[in-house]
Amino acid sequence: MNILTLNCGSSSVKYTMWKMPERRRICNGIVERIGFGDSTIKHQGKRNISMKCDSPDHDAAIKLMLKFLTDNEWGVVKSVSEIDALGHRVVHGGEKFNQSVLIDETVIEAIREYSELAPLHNPPNLSGIRASMDHLPDKPHIAVFDTAFYSTIPRHIHTYALPYEWYEKYKVRRYGFHGTSHLYVSRRASALLHRKPSELKMVSLHIGNGVSITAVKDGVAFDHSMGFTPLEGAVMGTRCGDIDPAIPLYMMRRCGFKVEEMSRILNERSGVLGVTGRYVDRRDIVEAAKNGDERCRLAMEMECYRLRKYIGAYAAAMGGLDAIIFTAGVGENQPVYRVKTCEGLKFLGVKIDEGRNEMAVDRRGEAVISVDDPKYPVKVLVIPTDEELVIAEDVYAILNGTYDVYTRFEYIFQREDFKPTLNV
Amino acid sequence: MNILTLNCGSSSVKYTMWKMPERRRICNGIVERIGFGDSTIKHQGKRNISMKCDSPDHDAAIKLMLKFLTDNEWGVVKSVSEIDALGHRVVHGGEKFNQSVLIDETVIEAIREYSELAPLHNPPNLSGIRASMDHLPDKPHIAVFDTAFYSTIPRHIHTYALPYEWYEKYKVRRYGFHGTSHLYVSRRASALLHRKPSELKMVSLHIGNGVSITAVKDGVAFDHSMGFTPLEGAVMGTRCGDIDPAIPLYMMRRCGFKVEEMSRILNERSGVLGVTGRYVDRRDIVEAAKNGDERCRLAMEMECYRLRKYIGAYAAAMGGLDAIIFTAGVGENQPVYRVKTCEGLKFLGVKIDEGRNEMAVDRRGEAVISVDDPKYPVKVLVIPTDEELVIAEDVYAILNGTYDVYTRFEYIFQREDFKPTLNV
Repeated sequence: MNILTLNCGSSSVKYTMWKMPERRRICNGIVERIGFGDSTIKHQGKRNISMKCDSPDHDAAIKLMLKFLTDNEWGVVKSVSEIDALGHRVVHGGEKFNQSVLIDETVIEAIREYSELAPLHNPPNLSGIRASMDHLPDKPHIAVFDTAFYSTIPRHIHTYALPYEWYEKYKVRRYGFHGTSHLYVSRRASALLHRKPSELKMVSLHIGNGVSITAVKDGVAFDHSMGFTPLEGAVMGTRCGDIDPAIPLYMMRRCGFKVEEMSRILNERSGVLGVTGRYVDRRDIVEAAKNGDERCRLAMEMECYRLRKYIGAYAAAMGGLDAIIFTAGVGENQPVYRVKTCEGLKFLGVKIDEGRNEMAVDRRGEAVISVDDPKYPVKVLVIPTDEELVIAEDVYAILNGTYDVYTRFEYIFQREDFKPTLNV
Repeated sequence: MNILTLNCGSSSVKYTMWKMPERRRICNGIVERIGFGDSTIKHQGKRNISMKCDSPDHDAAIKLMLKFLTDNEWGVVKSVSEIDALGHRVVHGGEKFNQSVLIDETVIEAIREYSELAPLHNPPNLSGIRASMDHLPDKPHIAVFDTAFYSTIPRHIHTYALPYEWYEKYKVRRYGFHGTSHLYVSRRASALLHRKPSELKMVSLHIGNGVSITAVKDGVAFDHSMGFTPLEGAVMGTRCGDIDPAIPLYMMRRCGFKVEEMSRILNERSGVLGVTGRYVDRRDIVEAAKNGDERCRLAMEMECYRLRKYIGAYAAAMGGLDAIIFTAGVGENQPVYRVKTCEGLKFLGVKIDEGRNEMAVDRRGEAVISVDDPKYPVKVLVIPTDEELVIAEDVYAILNGTYDVYTRFEYIFQREDFKPTLNV
């Protein structure tokens, strides 16, 4: 069975074609700069291609993708009829969706409704769904929500200390993002540790441009650093994360910023970019810090210190700690960030093995990077994330009638004999 | 020597007269509802008095206080000339003051300058200073800053992940509040534990209407939950504490709130008041929760859960934990909050003795409420706070020429034979 998974951002469409149930990635690609007049497509399958293209909107991008997928020379299927089903990443499913679902008009309506809570994400997600359904109207389309994994977070943890009617009327509460990533790495971690997810207390750190931390207890999300939006929590590439909520109001008063302007600064001009004044990419920051750049050093210290506090906070929240997982761009590739984050955590039973840590880069594979020493029982893992596989498996299971909510569903990638294949 | 310590809020003047160096509280009182037309004074000294009075402004309140202090019948000195010096609580000392100082025009100018950072606090502090200096121009007046205790917080901890020029131009950074309280209880804790402050890693929780948490390491502040303003951090009586900073912006967009209005809601209509819809006082909340009120139960769970996360976060930040201190109204008087906060922290070595915990109420005295069991080595203490004593000692030491910055200065109340006297 061929399953196509899609992740549509505001100006990009990422796609992966899967052979299921073998979980074989047969092709993937990305259309970028949609609507900018200078779009590009990168396609990896039978052949690797990268070229300029014309994609004024998501519909054009989807059409282009289908053309590439079915192309005689570099395509992977003969015609679109060989695509059996599609899985769509949807960022915000509000309180309505605690699992993946077959998309119908009611689901589309709900995704549209939640656009208000995720104005940067749900609208392009929806455009992608609409365009795909137009071109493949007879195939099952399935929505996989970022927020669904967090439906298990208890009420006292997802409620803010704000006027209660803001929750009742405007749905202001903690939701959570990067759900498929945290789900994947936490389940993989338990497989690697030969333990049931229900036996482990884990903190999983997804550190990329966006950064989020999830406390995973009994195999499900217990707490999460992102909140009502993906702005809260850790220091990120361009997002401020946790700050005194009085600061934006002070700056609006002080400098006359309007709401939209302030929102843009907190989301796009803050984080390590704000601190360093120039870098988002942590590789640049590590390099500059090495060369004595004060502000880059500061940004690294800040980011790792705050991650460390989250580890401590979530250990306290769960009543213990068995494993720490690093994933995503920075988490998978920056040994120095991992070392700095775990500094001083020996009292919690955390000690990183330097050699193992240095080796775990470039998505070489999954690795336990903590020492083998019963004095330090907390396992530290580096696990390359695979959000698309979660989507593909959900789609496959729904079509098969074997799907269930996250609290009960067992993924194939949870099996101990599962071997991740991260590239086409 | 008679030292008068003053704490001037927007509508109140709190005062205590001290006999030093005996550290004897000979009289205290409060003028309330200043400027509301129905002011009152409560005065405890030779006699306890409570009466209506006329206090249209801080000057009138200071005059009234001086009248009471020197009154034939209930006063404690014959004339104002017997007051040897005054200590003024000042909330915001910016980055300029890392210790208490004798007030001169430069200091007044600086306090005025920092009014922008503490618009609710510094102006009334300054009014009180001005009025006192007018009435007692020949006496030394000393400013004791809330923020000074936090001058030891490292840069990567006090910096926000915001555009760096906001720090440079507008002084946007973490400051810290309740400084004298955290200083007092942390130093008392080390005396009670027969350890040098420099040997201990402590988390001190000041839980009143305002709530703040300080990580105290090597005897000085290392991290703190309040930030640029006292809005950040824990769930409070009416303040929201940590939230997604996108929420106020979302609500302004959604409901058309203006900056001032939003600031008022976050500061005055949120916290446990926002969650319960009606209570600020935790006694009411505990009572209502017992009687099955869902929202009160939720507010308690939220508040304690978030305090617990701070304990874990700060333990991780300091690389260990030796003691947890509860203080202020709720911290000193609500055993159930202390138990709930420490729930699940056994893995950190924290276990409360139920009997001891129940006994530690009503400012009966200082108490260790953790079990005597080497398996749970973290000491949990209840220490009634005494912010005025810090001010009195600072004043006394400055006049004596024995004063030094907080990192080095040793208070009399740090001595093991010191006996707190919390009432007149």
